[in-house]
Amino acid sequence: MTFQAQQLEKGAPITGQSLLEDVSLPATAIFDSPLANNIAWMQRYADDHGAQLAPHGKTTMTPALFRRQLDAGAWGITLATAVQCAAAFEHGVARLLMANQLVGTPNMAIVADLIGRGADYCCVVDSAANVAALDRFFGERGLTLNVLIELGVPGGRCGVRDASALTALVDAIAAAPAIALCGVEGYEALIGGEHAVDRIRAYAGQLVATLHGLMDAGAFADRKPIVTAAGSQWFDLIAEAFDRVDLRERCTPVLRPGCYVVHDHRSYRDALAEVKARHPELEGNLQPALAVFAHVQSLPEPGLAVVAMGKRDISCDPDLPIPLQRHRPGEPAHALRHCATRKVMDQHTMLAIPEDADLRIGDIVSFDASHPCLTFDKWRQVLRVDDALRVLEVMPTFF
Amino acid sequence: MTFQAQQLEKGAPITGQSLLEDVSLPATAIFDSPLANNIAWMQRYADDHGAQLAPHGKTTMTPALFRRQLDAGAWGITLATAVQCAAAFEHGVARLLMANQLVGTPNMAIVADLIGRGADYCCVVDSAANVAALDRFFGERGLTLNVLIELGVPGGRCGVRDASALTALVDAIAAAPAIALCGVEGYEALIGGEHAVDRIRAYAGQLVATLHGLMDAGAFADRKPIVTAAGSQWFDLIAEAFDRVDLRERCTPVLRPGCYVVHDHRSYRDALAEVKARHPELEGNLQPALAVFAHVQSLPEPGLAVVAMGKRDISCDPDLPIPLQRHRPGEPAHALRHCATRKVMDQHTMLAIPEDADLRIGDIVSFDASHPCLTFDKWRQVLRVDDALRVLEVMPTFF
Repeated sequence: MTFQAQQLEKGAPITGQSLLEDVSLPATAIFDSPLANNIAWMQRYADDHGAQLAPHGKTTMTPALFRRQLDAGAWGITLATAVQCAAAFEHGVARLLMANQLVGTPNMAIVADLIGRGADYCCVVDSAANVAALDRFFGERGLTLNVLIELGVPGGRCGVRDASALTALVDAIAAAPAIALCGVEGYEALIGGEHAVDRIRAYAGQLVATLHGLMDAGAFADRKPIVTAAGSQWFDLIAEAFDRVDLRERCTPVLRPGCYVVHDHRSYRDALAEVKARHPELEGNLQPALAVFAHVQSLPEPGLAVVAMGKRDISCDPDLPIPLQRHRPGEPAHALRHCATRKVMDQHTMLAIPEDADLRIGDIVSFDASHPCLTFDKWRQVLRVDDALRVLEVMPTFF
Repeated sequence: MTFQAQQLEKGAPITGQSLLEDVSLPATAIFDSPLANNIAWMQRYADDHGAQLAPHGKTTMTPALFRRQLDAGAWGITLATAVQCAAAFEHGVARLLMANQLVGTPNMAIVADLIGRGADYCCVVDSAANVAALDRFFGERGLTLNVLIELGVPGGRCGVRDASALTALVDAIAAAPAIALCGVEGYEALIGGEHAVDRIRAYAGQLVATLHGLMDAGAFADRKPIVTAAGSQWFDLIAEAFDRVDLRERCTPVLRPGCYVVHDHRSYRDALAEVKARHPELEGNLQPALAVFAHVQSLPEPGLAVVAMGKRDISCDPDLPIPLQRHRPGEPAHALRHCATRKVMDQHTMLAIPEDADLRIGDIVSFDASHPCLTFDKWRQVLRVDDALRVLEVMPTFF
């Protein structure tokens, strides 16, 4: 392990270096100014809607970004797995919202350790079988596990599908002394297709109605139960449904978008345009903050540039990487118009370029990643850079 | 960095643990017995065809596997980037075949450091511009850089496309005192579609003819120039073309498949079936050696199981993960027939299952990854396990 640490140090870039001249490429950069804008923008948005913000940390798994989100006012960090929760807690995140089922005794043991060390943790449940397993594990250790009931949608992912399943789950929780019911959780982005807006509004209403029903029934252990949903695509629809005086006073509404922190040039740009079309009064904007930088390595035939960047370096899901700019040390960046990614292999990107493109071997091309989540997990560190592409901070990731 | 090392230690599984009972899942396991079979099988294949083997290390970036490949007789390890070469060299790989262009001064500096420390390194070139940049960089440091000429195919990736480009490149190398020409390189898997077998045979012949032409012209610095190609799909066609007495005596033919080391249940299984159809005399087989293990976390509606494994954990390219077996501690593994992956999200897999499937929340499902390359890069360690799913070795990866 010592050896691995040395190796990471050896390969790692250093604060103060020039991204274009000193850093081994490919590398992933996050621009400081749009990053700060995005963190502040979404926090203000949540504040203005009477909601707490628990940014989804699985997007970046970059504790240096969690710190900035918390410093800006975030209530906690959302995570997807026990291992992610442990990484966040080790880096000072005290409130962990695991928007996922906790399954498997080794994962339960990780969470038990976190709770024992003072973490404010909750996860979601959607089955009596899972509740029974959790109750057995945490009860044997004298611990209480906080859970949220997950409401699903037919054809979706996890979550209870109907009233009878909900009742059975509530009963199972009531019969489980080590399990404390603390709220209701959902994920609206599984709803798509026709009339998505109306259907998401109905789903958000269902989350709130379920919360109220369970409050009336005295099902919650907590006096201010949580209601939570909202990714980076439809957050306004959820925020609207949660933005009610009774919820502000008696509950804790929590939004948990993830990708907003770096945004992008395509899928989330389009999603934000829809949000703003629904809400022309919204001021400011999220701004694309992440780019992968890589060298042109070959210009083997007219119209083709091969770039030294592959599926190991950037997300290709749902969009192929979008070439943004050509960079040469000492020259202003140059927009790459009329260039398009044709194919991405494990270590190479084939770029269709105009035959008269001013692109040379050794030139650096920056690419947008849409969506950005699946870019972070390809790197052991991402680089926070200023507008002059100077490295401000080397930020380790913990996937 | 110290903190990161602690964190890695904390999350890491330990030798002797039970994969099913002690290890936080999802996790990637490599079965010891098929792994040993595959390493021995491909080494024997290369030996029998008078070729050296330089397994492509970018597949796994797992030095513990490089060590096994070298111990079995591999001539060196193939890599795709300077950073990969540095990781391999730090872990004792002395001969580094970088089957890619070396671009960017920070990457050149990494390689210069390796050469200065005794690495036997070569990379490929396909342009006079790259040769000039390399000559300047290495010449200024009093170093000689070994290169292979890359032969490409029209519509393919890198590599010179025709005789005039080849001549210009050979001239550029001859005019570059710090650049030593050591051979010819190609990658046949970029040729596909109709008549692929015939076209790959022709391409392999072209590699050999180019080698001979350059030998006759006295273009090589090395007395035994290298000729190299062959991924894990069409390796027999390349091996046949290289299997000549004159090549054995006067040259160093090098095969460099990567994925063979863990093989798979679909894309490489099919490729091997074609190899064996062309060569019924071939004894033995490559065997699938890698599987990702994950828990069933939800059974929310009839016919659907949600598994706690996502795009962050397993390759979905070109095939969705294939469910192999259901595992329960203390019970024999059970083949998962009639189950199929319907969709994979960042952290979840939706599995279509028969309505009468005996699958419970907390059950463990093992999945095949096809192709396997893009699974390794999702993990900071992979686990070598025995048939009883006991962890024999925790093998760190270096992506």
